[in-house]
Amino acid sequence: MRTAEVFRLTMAHPGDLSELERLIAGGTIRAADVTAIIGKTEGNGGVNDFTRGYFTQTLMGLLSQHLNKPAAQLIREIPCVLSGGTEGVMSPHYSVFCVSEGVAQQYPSALAIGTAFSAPVPAEDVGRRVHVESVAAAVRKAIANAGIEHLDDVHFVQVKCPCVTVARAAAAIAVGKTPLTNDPNKSMAFARAAGAFGVALGLDEIKPADFDDSSLLSDFSIQSPRASISSGVEVESNEVVVLGNSPSWGGALRIAHRPMSDALDIGAVVDVLSDLGIAAQPQVSATDAGRIACVLVKCEPDRRGRIRGSRHTMLDDTDINAQRHIRGAVAGLVAGVIGDGRIFVSGGAEHQGPDGGGLIAVIASQTRSAT
Amino acid sequence: MRTAEVFRLTMAHPGDLSELERLIAGGTIRAADVTAIIGKTEGNGGVNDFTRGYFTQTLMGLLSQHLNKPAAQLIREIPCVLSGGTEGVMSPHYSVFCVSEGVAQQYPSALAIGTAFSAPVPAEDVGRRVHVESVAAAVRKAIANAGIEHLDDVHFVQVKCPCVTVARAAAAIAVGKTPLTNDPNKSMAFARAAGAFGVALGLDEIKPADFDDSSLLSDFSIQSPRASISSGVEVESNEVVVLGNSPSWGGALRIAHRPMSDALDIGAVVDVLSDLGIAAQPQVSATDAGRIACVLVKCEPDRRGRIRGSRHTMLDDTDINAQRHIRGAVAGLVAGVIGDGRIFVSGGAEHQGPDGGGLIAVIASQTRSAT
Amino acid sequence: MRTAEVFRLTMAHPGDLSELERLIAGGTIRAADVTAIIGKTEGNGGVNDFTRGYFTQTLMGLLSQHLNKPAAQLIREIPCVLSGGTEGVMSPHYSVFCVSEGVAQQYPSALAIGTAFSAPVPAEDVGRRVHVESVAAAVRKAIANAGIEHLDDVHFVQVKCPCVTVARAAAAIAVGKTPLTNDPNKSMAFARAAGAFGVALGLDEIKPADFDDSSLLSDFSIQSPRASISSGVEVESNEVVVLGNSPSWGGALRIAHRPMSDALDIGAVVDVLSDLGIAAQPQVSATDAGRIACVLVKCEPDRRGRIRGSRHTMLDDTDINAQRHIRGAVAGLVAGVIGDGRIFVSGGAEHQGPDGGGLIAVIASQTRSAT
Amino acid sequence: MRTAEVFRLTMAHPGDLSELERLIAGGTIRAADVTAIIGKTEGNGGVNDFTRGYFTQTLMGLLSQHLNKPAAQLIREIPCVLSGGTEGVMSPHYSVFCVSEGVAQQYPSALAIGTAFSAPVPAEDVGRRVHVESVAAAVRKAIANAGIEHLDDVHFVQVKCPCVTVARAAAAIAVGKTPLTNDPNKSMAFARAAGAFGVALGLDEIKPADFDDSSLLSDFSIQSPRASISSGVEVESNEVVVLGNSPSWGGALRIAHRPMSDALDIGAVVDVLSDLGIAAQPQVSATDAGRIACVLVKCEPDRRGRIRGSRHTMLDDTDINAQRHIRGAVAGLVAGVIGDGRIFVSGGAEHQGPDGGGLIAVIASQTRSAT
Repeated sequence: MRTAEVFRLTMAHPGDLSELERLIAGGTIRAADVTAIIGKTEGNGGVNDFTRGYFTQTLMGLLSQHLNKPAAQLIREIPCVLSGGTEGVMSPHYSVFCVSEGVAQQYPSALAIGTAFSAPVPAEDVGRRVHVESVAAAVRKAIANAGIEHLDDVHFVQVKCPCVTVARAAAAIAVGKTPLTNDPNKSMAFARAAGAFGVALGLDEIKPADFDDSSLLSDFSIQSPRASISSGVEVESNEVVVLGNSPSWGGALRIAHRPMSDALDIGAVVDVLSDLGIAAQPQVSATDAGRIACVLVKCEPDRRGRIRGSRHTMLDDTDINAQRHIRGAVAGLVAGVIGDGRIFVSGGAEHQGPDGGGLIAVIASQTRSAT
Repeated sequence: MRTAEVFRLTMAHPGDLSELERLIAGGTIRAADVTAIIGKTEGNGGVNDFTRGYFTQTLMGLLSQHLNKPAAQLIREIPCVLSGGTEGVMSPHYSVFCVSEGVAQQYPSALAIGTAFSAPVPAEDVGRRVHVESVAAAVRKAIANAGIEHLDDVHFVQVKCPCVTVARAAAAIAVGKTPLTNDPNKSMAFARAAGAFGVALGLDEIKPADFDDSSLLSDFSIQSPRASISSGVEVESNEVVVLGNSPSWGGALRIAHRPMSDALDIGAVVDVLSDLGIAAQPQVSATDAGRIACVLVKCEPDRRGRIRGSRHTMLDDTDINAQRHIRGAVAGLVAGVIGDGRIFVSGGAEHQGPDGGGLIAVIASQTRSAT
Repeated sequence: MRTAEVFRLTMAHPGDLSELERLIAGGTIRAADVTAIIGKTEGNGGVNDFTRGYFTQTLMGLLSQHLNKPAAQLIREIPCVLSGGTEGVMSPHYSVFCVSEGVAQQYPSALAIGTAFSAPVPAEDVGRRVHVESVAAAVRKAIANAGIEHLDDVHFVQVKCPCVTVARAAAAIAVGKTPLTNDPNKSMAFARAAGAFGVALGLDEIKPADFDDSSLLSDFSIQSPRASISSGVEVESNEVVVLGNSPSWGGALRIAHRPMSDALDIGAVVDVLSDLGIAAQPQVSATDAGRIACVLVKCEPDRRGRIRGSRHTMLDDTDINAQRHIRGAVAGLVAGVIGDGRIFVSGGAEHQGPDGGGLIAVIASQTRSAT
Repeated sequence: MRTAEVFRLTMAHPGDLSELERLIAGGTIRAADVTAIIGKTEGNGGVNDFTRGYFTQTLMGLLSQHLNKPAAQLIREIPCVLSGGTEGVMSPHYSVFCVSEGVAQQYPSALAIGTAFSAPVPAEDVGRRVHVESVAAAVRKAIANAGIEHLDDVHFVQVKCPCVTVARAAAAIAVGKTPLTNDPNKSMAFARAAGAFGVALGLDEIKPADFDDSSLLSDFSIQSPRASISSGVEVESNEVVVLGNSPSWGGALRIAHRPMSDALDIGAVVDVLSDLGIAAQPQVSATDAGRIACVLVKCEPDRRGRIRGSRHTMLDDTDINAQRHIRGAVAGLVAGVIGDGRIFVSGGAEHQGPDGGGLIAVIASQTRSAT
């Protein structure tokens, strides 16, 4: 029976994989079991955030040594989904998702993991319908890979989508192609929208006829409460990680998710913990905190400029990028309830959960005594 | 019997006092009753944050018209304490503290307000013992002004201290004086430390022999859980606002405060609300939120680089000032519990509450039905 | 005979008009002669730069006292064109343009100044053809006001255009209007494009049939080498200042301009000085520097991501706004040639001079011995 | 006869060494000849700039493959001096310094290169006398390595010094040591000062008795016009590259240097080019630009807050680090004269050239027809 384990590790800087190295050397982690990585690095989270590439290069070099495979091959087999930006109380860390065989079943249902990669997405396709369909196909592949039978059992779909830099846009234009935009931050937003539509399509939440190119970043009634999309310059394909619960998996972990209605939705945080049998009154106890393996959050500065009627200034700030603002705020809230800054809070939640809000997913042990 | 009222008003930009204008024009506020202003403007909160000066100039111009006194005089009579930086979910707003006569007593004890101004602090004194003593004297004057008899009844002392800019430092040096530093951000930190020591001294929390110049920004066991200090280029004197409860005041408002042990201390937020008879499970209800008149928070990026054992990156970030980071995070937490972004969260909490944490004070109506 | 004078004054902060106050008090400047202000304040130059509003409020308050007219009227009569952002070696300063009567003619032709205001531009019109036409009409009015007969004698047309904030966009949408964009930085760019097209149209450089809505920020072959456009939240109308030379004006000043082909075009700087009889080998001498009254520059980060074949990183930087980058770089170059940081360098040069470059205009005395 | 060559290569991102890879693969560069790298990466240049570490890891991995030596050894043999921050018109690039044997002498004197590494510098030593002496010893070693006989023939000494992060400071304090500061940006400044003093001492410009610990960042009359110091979190030892001219070296290259008196000192730029027989009237011609192999500049925001009497705002800016400001400005000036953005402009010039200024060194071919 396949079993999923999650190791949440810290790093001293984006090139520091020493904790993973130590766990592999000590036998706690088998390098061959590493299936996916989801982490937060301390960059700015924007187009010129190279902490993600630095971490990825270091990770693939490390695994390459242990697996005796070229890094260039591993990077196409193991999704490494990094979100830059550890604003405020967030702590740089990465969660290593491992899948192994042979553990006896402990619970009726347990965390299941599946991954998939699409073909590279050309610059001129980014943020368009063809991009959406490319993501949807990869999502279905990853669900099959996880062996999850019911789409309802999928709780979180992480997709890393490529975006367009000024250079990539210029290259595409030079050969007669027309990228949607040559503004890199705009491109990242369209790529995230395409990812969210792709997840919704892959999960049958929407139908092919429900949208066209113009719906992206425009019709915000289209949304998937289970989609978490990052976008970055360092990938060329869509990389997909599907997380759900399945009776055909062993292990103690379990995942739950909740949409967040806005950036102040502390109720969603408390509720998702409650779904996993964990109380927060007002903070998770140290014992229960030990059961939490991974916290995944998407958030977004409200486009309409207001939160519950009060004006916010995130979108009008020329000094600090709006995504950095919202990540810092929502991380402050979630970390306060959890009592831990090692949480994955990622901005750019367009079409991922309610407009102006986002979503939260938590993975925790079903065993009361420890992780 | 003196009665304190607090009007929490929003602004469209730092020069927009139209809400106050409207309330004065409509007779809701008497210009002569305006005793102090505490607000958040949408600047960066640093040395080059001119939103505070802009707001103050506009405010004093407005009151000058209504009171028929020169603005230059009013600015020395009415403390206008602004903290720049509405990171994340915070909403630019200002609380107008009004004191009037003649309302009958409703509760055994109610919100009391007192203010005071010190003489100007020369650039070379900023952040030194003489600065501390100047603050302490002003605090005592403000307590007397409020008519609060027991120091225990003081819950919040807001001080705005002058700091040193490169230009002020150069001017002082030119006449043979030696400012403590010519680094403006460093100067703001020393000024805040002096303010906190001054409050502690004024409240008899510490004795004159307990510290010398070298204790500031160094001995963090010295702290006042009731001190909230801002520093800015736009003031030359220490401006003090004392808030407490007193049996000799009428009105429905009441204040409580709690120290915050660190940036994740959601318990302090829930507890201070509980002190005022307001539940947060996990969020304050809309009805109870209507009772809350003012939320005042101080916070600080932990100097030791860790929060509950996990590394944070606020102090090593060259792109975003550490104070902007921590304000955004703590505001995210507090606003999530309160359900409202119109909160005053100010960074630079050196010696103001526990090291690495800070404090929270809330003013709320004792009357259950309304504001 | 009308005579134009330019006083270049420094400020300690955006609310500091003490130099102007002193010159008025001392009789050097007659308040009634103040016709326009062009200056650099130390904000970020973006949507949330309130240094411009602060300065303007202070200026109008000062002139109001001296002219015995309400500030609200003056703000509609005296263009106050401020560009935020004194990156690098730039020094905050403002040039006061004064027009007086009665001085005898010194030179065959001299600096002429004209101003005009358009009606307010609704949020939904910003960046569209109707905005262009509104600017063009105001430009023609300002030329007439200056009494410049030949369009060739116009050397510099400064326009300040209103833009759309998130709040203004929301307000327009609420009443059924459709702003071009609700991204404030994007809106500022469209507003600047409309201003440049308006100047080109007003100067007969382009014809009404040469463009439509879609040409703005798209057809960069349309450009005016004499247009300098700023955009900001603090204005609602287009404010126009026309500068040229005219035989019907007295005084010693003269203006010249040159297009800048890119951000490295030091030749344009040297050439425009040469047009005024000033040598830079490599720097203007202290004596000649004394003849220079005002330096006005527009610049732009090259949209194609390269300067002379080498990749630049301005457009991909999430930490520092691209306009701040380019202003700092071009100001470094121009200030190095002039030997003075009191120069007006403004970003956002879309359609203002060659694509990826911009323009420079200099006003200098024709008299060799002094200012 | 040893011959020095310099290859100035571009990169698409900090992990892109493809140009070097191509030149090695094509036989233009022998991997074994690579002696040092000096480059500009597109980070923020501060404590949390990881583009330097990313580039270095990639470089050492590449050379490791070609040289069949572990990267961990190469990093202690080949100085890789990177300065983060390509503000404004600067283009990310790196100069590969190669030394080979056997070329016949072309000119009486030619570019000579020497390198050296010190032992690691403990956190508590950073910025103190023992740090200075460690640098001085390494400088002397590098001069010997270059075979330069007369100290006057040394024109540029690049040192990369370790600095202290919050984490390193905490670790030192935990074992009873006292770092000079735990403010990382302050630490970087002290490290650069120690490097500059070390160069001055190594070049006999100052004597051991001329300074003590308190002179660093305090006595700015102590300065070396040939010292270029960077500081970063990614190194633990001082890494030294000495560049000079020597009759015992072959090749066509030659180096010259000039102090820069302030950030507007365009004369120094023109003069250093003139020293190499290159005219700039006002810009270097395309032909002569082809002779220029490397441009190295150090600069500094004037600590006194003024440049030639005019106030600058770099030191009071909470949004943009002062070093980013000054790099952008000085690079704008130098690139304008050279006509090329591929220049190394590094901030933090404390004690490196005149106070408030810095220095410029240029390497160019003595052969008129080409590089």
